[in-house]
Amino acid sequence: MIDGTLLPGCPIAWGMVGGGHNSQIGHVHRSAALRDHNFRLVAGAFDIDAARGRRFGEQLGVDVQRCYADYRAMFEAEAGRPDGIRAVSIATPNNTHFEICKAALLSGLHVVCEKPLCFTTAEAKELLELSLARNRMVGVAYGYAGHPLIAQAREMIARGELGDIRIVQMQFSHGFHSEAVEQSSPAARWRMDPAFAGPSYVLGDIGTHPLYLSQVMLPGLKIERLMCSRQSFVSSRAPLEDNAFTLMQYQGGAMGYLWACAVNSGSMHGHKLRVIGARASLEWWDEHPNQLRHEVQGQPAQVLDRGMGYLHPAALQEDRISAGHAEGLFEAWSNLYHRFALAMEATDRRDREALQTILHPDIHAGIEGVRWVENCVRSADAGGIWVDYC
Amino acid sequence: MIDGTLLPGCPIAWGMVGGGHNSQIGHVHRSAALRDHNFRLVAGAFDIDAARGRRFGEQLGVDVQRCYADYRAMFEAEAGRPDGIRAVSIATPNNTHFEICKAALLSGLHVVCEKPLCFTTAEAKELLELSLARNRMVGVAYGYAGHPLIAQAREMIARGELGDIRIVQMQFSHGFHSEAVEQSSPAARWRMDPAFAGPSYVLGDIGTHPLYLSQVMLPGLKIERLMCSRQSFVSSRAPLEDNAFTLMQYQGGAMGYLWACAVNSGSMHGHKLRVIGARASLEWWDEHPNQLRHEVQGQPAQVLDRGMGYLHPAALQEDRISAGHAEGLFEAWSNLYHRFALAMEATDRRDREALQTILHPDIHAGIEGVRWVENCVRSADAGGIWVDYC
Amino acid sequence: MIDGTLLPGCPIAWGMVGGGHNSQIGHVHRSAALRDHNFRLVAGAFDIDAARGRRFGEQLGVDVQRCYADYRAMFEAEAGRPDGIRAVSIATPNNTHFEICKAALLSGLHVVCEKPLCFTTAEAKELLELSLARNRMVGVAYGYAGHPLIAQAREMIARGELGDIRIVQMQFSHGFHSEAVEQSSPAARWRMDPAFAGPSYVLGDIGTHPLYLSQVMLPGLKIERLMCSRQSFVSSRAPLEDNAFTLMQYQGGAMGYLWACAVNSGSMHGHKLRVIGARASLEWWDEHPNQLRHEVQGQPAQVLDRGMGYLHPAALQEDRISAGHAEGLFEAWSNLYHRFALAMEATDRRDREALQTILHPDIHAGIEGVRWVENCVRSADAGGIWVDYC
Amino acid sequence: MIDGTLLPGCPIAWGMVGGGHNSQIGHVHRSAALRDHNFRLVAGAFDIDAARGRRFGEQLGVDVQRCYADYRAMFEAEAGRPDGIRAVSIATPNNTHFEICKAALLSGLHVVCEKPLCFTTAEAKELLELSLARNRMVGVAYGYAGHPLIAQAREMIARGELGDIRIVQMQFSHGFHSEAVEQSSPAARWRMDPAFAGPSYVLGDIGTHPLYLSQVMLPGLKIERLMCSRQSFVSSRAPLEDNAFTLMQYQGGAMGYLWACAVNSGSMHGHKLRVIGARASLEWWDEHPNQLRHEVQGQPAQVLDRGMGYLHPAALQEDRISAGHAEGLFEAWSNLYHRFALAMEATDRRDREALQTILHPDIHAGIEGVRWVENCVRSADAGGIWVDYC
Repeated sequence: MIDGTLLPGCPIAWGMVGGGHNSQIGHVHRSAALRDHNFRLVAGAFDIDAARGRRFGEQLGVDVQRCYADYRAMFEAEAGRPDGIRAVSIATPNNTHFEICKAALLSGLHVVCEKPLCFTTAEAKELLELSLARNRMVGVAYGYAGHPLIAQAREMIARGELGDIRIVQMQFSHGFHSEAVEQSSPAARWRMDPAFAGPSYVLGDIGTHPLYLSQVMLPGLKIERLMCSRQSFVSSRAPLEDNAFTLMQYQGGAMGYLWACAVNSGSMHGHKLRVIGARASLEWWDEHPNQLRHEVQGQPAQVLDRGMGYLHPAALQEDRISAGHAEGLFEAWSNLYHRFALAMEATDRRDREALQTILHPDIHAGIEGVRWVENCVRSADAGGIWVDYC
Repeated sequence: MIDGTLLPGCPIAWGMVGGGHNSQIGHVHRSAALRDHNFRLVAGAFDIDAARGRRFGEQLGVDVQRCYADYRAMFEAEAGRPDGIRAVSIATPNNTHFEICKAALLSGLHVVCEKPLCFTTAEAKELLELSLARNRMVGVAYGYAGHPLIAQAREMIARGELGDIRIVQMQFSHGFHSEAVEQSSPAARWRMDPAFAGPSYVLGDIGTHPLYLSQVMLPGLKIERLMCSRQSFVSSRAPLEDNAFTLMQYQGGAMGYLWACAVNSGSMHGHKLRVIGARASLEWWDEHPNQLRHEVQGQPAQVLDRGMGYLHPAALQEDRISAGHAEGLFEAWSNLYHRFALAMEATDRRDREALQTILHPDIHAGIEGVRWVENCVRSADAGGIWVDYC
Repeated sequence: MIDGTLLPGCPIAWGMVGGGHNSQIGHVHRSAALRDHNFRLVAGAFDIDAARGRRFGEQLGVDVQRCYADYRAMFEAEAGRPDGIRAVSIATPNNTHFEICKAALLSGLHVVCEKPLCFTTAEAKELLELSLARNRMVGVAYGYAGHPLIAQAREMIARGELGDIRIVQMQFSHGFHSEAVEQSSPAARWRMDPAFAGPSYVLGDIGTHPLYLSQVMLPGLKIERLMCSRQSFVSSRAPLEDNAFTLMQYQGGAMGYLWACAVNSGSMHGHKLRVIGARASLEWWDEHPNQLRHEVQGQPAQVLDRGMGYLHPAALQEDRISAGHAEGLFEAWSNLYHRFALAMEATDRRDREALQTILHPDIHAGIEGVRWVENCVRSADAGGIWVDYC
Repeated sequence: MIDGTLLPGCPIAWGMVGGGHNSQIGHVHRSAALRDHNFRLVAGAFDIDAARGRRFGEQLGVDVQRCYADYRAMFEAEAGRPDGIRAVSIATPNNTHFEICKAALLSGLHVVCEKPLCFTTAEAKELLELSLARNRMVGVAYGYAGHPLIAQAREMIARGELGDIRIVQMQFSHGFHSEAVEQSSPAARWRMDPAFAGPSYVLGDIGTHPLYLSQVMLPGLKIERLMCSRQSFVSSRAPLEDNAFTLMQYQGGAMGYLWACAVNSGSMHGHKLRVIGARASLEWWDEHPNQLRHEVQGQPAQVLDRGMGYLHPAALQEDRISAGHAEGLFEAWSNLYHRFALAMEATDRRDREALQTILHPDIHAGIEGVRWVENCVRSADAGGIWVDYC
């Protein structure tokens, strides 16, 4: 139960890069980090426009002296303060993640970074080495992973309740970009520009969400080969795709399918997973995140509800209110930041054992997302052929 | 859009009475009030056990000097401080609401009180007069009212999209008290003891939630007569009911039906409203609060989703994230405290016009809930007969 | 499994009164009776307009000699033939049911009659005595009772899986008569004219459907008292109601609630039952009749599907196709006529024991529907007061 | 409206090959053909065991003289009778379809054949030429196509309500064969034996159902290339697959995805289509076949219901009962046989124009199914590569 009492060592002095005025995701980060008082927002380089960023910081209640013109200035100044930030969250366009993340680690900060962590696995490995060398946590913002029923699914699968896993169906397929909204929406525009977004649009921007959830639920599953076919149905988006189908063959013979789509007209999020075992299946849908469907072949289908006593302890430990009340995305993100706070503390203590028990999207999750997009793009650009996963 | 920027005059120095360790609703109040930084928790009399309350306050980060033994001590001490609290939230058992609320008003504080505001309409009117005399806001914790789609329903009905209103179906019917859980759960126990809970259990504890939502959606609807039949299916709960059916005849001929039940085995919340007009109906369900069903006779049923551009501005102004993402109960409560902050400021300015535009459960909502329970109990105790609403 | 093989003694020579051209329910009766070849349509008095009825009969393939001008002619002529009808179905306006049913019994025919069987319990008892004296089956067209999951619910309740029954929620609330459609629709018009429809509209026309299902599921439940409030929201319908709320107190203390409504704008059928016990609830909805929801308090909700091996044999015996395929209303009605054929044979054999095992809406079901409407109307016309059930 | 009145030229004298005792699909064919009295079952070679077939035929009421030992005997004897059959339905294992269908055409019969029509496109073309030469109708048993809302989808797409079609999502993914049920179930066994089933299991047995529905909804859509990956999760089924993923690239750039699966544990049918256009999407699910979801981007989602006046006439012409009542699979099949009867009559009249207006799965649909499986198998057996559709 999370009830607002502070974690040991908290609140953690915290800053943000990006996420300024009109940034929706910036608000989500702040809302999540500050919710349980485990972080305190004391500094920021919120905007590429320094003056606008400063005004915004003041509106948030940040001391104007600590509203910086850019991340370099922030990292340097904060490092010199006795009360300087210990952690930073990065919510900027994709093309800047690598350099900011690297600079933050070099400044000795724990990092929470928007996905993708970077554009290449080579870059990702550089960040990994740096995080190890400096003993700093790098977390990735896979917010959906904080929903308690994701942990429930993981526990049920681990206990063999589904039997051998055969098929993993994943999708994140919304319709909000059925038309070329990027012509009028700046928030959409950079996502479809390779200079800012990197080598993919929907694969990296939304496809990695269900991919990460599948990794949480099925930590032992490893991709052996995959094939990806991608399209730009709004043709001005080429070479970036607004739709992609990916088939995966896992080691051991299980199969995966992931559909990432931004042109699924009329669909809200369409973010779903279905894990199919030899005995039973589990299905979760982010629009009704308080329910998990459990279907045992030959038995009545079951609907599990968040907060109920029949769930595994791992799915109950972060409840904020009893069953029957709808929790939403903000609770999931807050749970994630709660885990990040725990992970930062454990990292500082070099408590590797504790770290193992904190289910959070760490740098390995970030690397895996980058790798998956790389492989998908390699397959798609070769004509949708099967490629060995590397 | 709510994005974390501060309202003018905020944060408001704020204290709590009750809502201590293990109080779920206390956490909800704090989570809601602090979420948008419009309130700052600086004082509390959190527990009937003073030492336990003090420890809990410290864990929340409240200055130990301002963790008080009881509400009287808090109101007196805070009134003497230049930085004393301006507002207090009351989350104690029902039987104490009246005296604490009265004391808070006498101390010049704005008040947010758990329902029921008090036990009799006579008491309620005393609070009303006091709040007017002292120019202080009294808000009641009808948290569901903060869901954006409730405002959407209100706007659609006001615009005549349903035609003349004929029937209002309401229910809050969960199954969590199918057995005598009060024998082991202290949180359940006082709710079923007339000494603490007052003249009703489910009518006042859960029935007033959909009743208030119906009042928000249909501000012009006035009850003319009602009849209520109540039962104690777990017999040790008598004279308090764990199930009640209420039929209402509104002025003008529309009919209402409200089912309050705590023994609806296997049901989660079962908190639903359906408003039926001559042309169309609206239906809302708190377990999937981001959807509103709009059924026009002779046309395909429509499902409206929170955050979409086709909604009325009143249903969009408190969005925290774009459509497709699930918002939950905490967002609804935060919206409510956001409105309470606005209402406190408007009250202080004596800006009656602004106050009219802030859709919040004020003291009149509190009075109406008390009156409704009084009438229901009067009918039920007379054998379930029709009584004139008074 | 029903697979088209003939029952012993079948097909039964069968005629119809009413149900002619443009009669929807007439088609449903024929479709149901002929589906499994247990009946053969050989005679009819299909229409009040004799010539039109004759033409229609011919289009159905009935020998023109056996297309009669009225039911009296048919009963007389058929009685004189060696191959004359053994059974008749009555699908005429309500006000004629009693006299036709009586004449059929006097002619030695088995009868399937549309509800209501008649208008008063006195009439109903006369029919009962006649059916006993002549040893003929009288069945009533409660078609929904043929859905296999109704039998499943009955079995689960009988086995105590729900615990003591506390509350029965029933509703049949559609929106198709939100406006005064009777001004242009002959099929609707007579239903709202007391001369043809009798003392009620929605209570008798749709309310008795869920009432009968509750009797099937809960054969031991007896109404002790009830109160009914009825309205004519389309005022030209008065004194007949287009909406009615009925509360029932059963012997032993359980409570029932039945909402019958024809002005529930935008609703399709809204035909639902929820039976609530001390341990669990069951819920069934006629728009998705292949599913039955089973909710045990404290456990995941379960969805049972028609045709699955985990169901009771009584819920499997009339399957026509394996699970997963949608069966609909026509299958339910066909099952009912299948049972009527079995019941006619058993009646002819005077095999009372067999008759007990055939779950069909017999004359007692017909009487009970008439009685319930009588009591509801008595309560409503006295101002919605509680009346002893008699 | 279908109401039981006979079509001109009907009933058609009709026989069956296969579909005997314990054959579920045989019952479905008979139930569908006889439902509206457009066919009369007068002959049959119901079983490979002649005596058992004769007994079964008698139980169905077929003259024992016309219960034949095999199809050859039946075709020969019936051809010699003045009242001989005009049409035959074939419900035997897959490997016999070609020869029986050919023999029927050579005997001058109209044919309704279970899918697949045959095993190779070469065979299919031979049947096509024969049907043209003999002027006989060949229909294929794609029963789901008879659901009225399929016609509604076709009309809406034809009118451009979805905008340019971009993506077609198809699936038929049940869980009934998660285990090796074929070891005990004869009905399952032959389906997984290449000698009887042909080159595929789930692709041909269930995958062609949504494929055909997509062809009905989107008659102009032509596959250009496809890739298929198939698995035998129950390994004893190899080389036949119990799961297959197929990606299709259509001429003009739209994409299709079809998932056929018999090991989707806990799923009932999982038979769904979603057609996505630039403006809107349509979604249909066979377990709730009376609803069609219409999602226009930026507008509330709509749920269309069978039988409602806002539907296109093509979706209303085969209604058997008004909206709100659940129709099921049997109605869909009956509608199909209704169309087959119309098509047989039109074929006999050589009325090509009328034939064009009767939406039925004709021999071209049969050929297309065979071709699709051929292409899928070719791709899958080459390692899941893209192949040109031929």
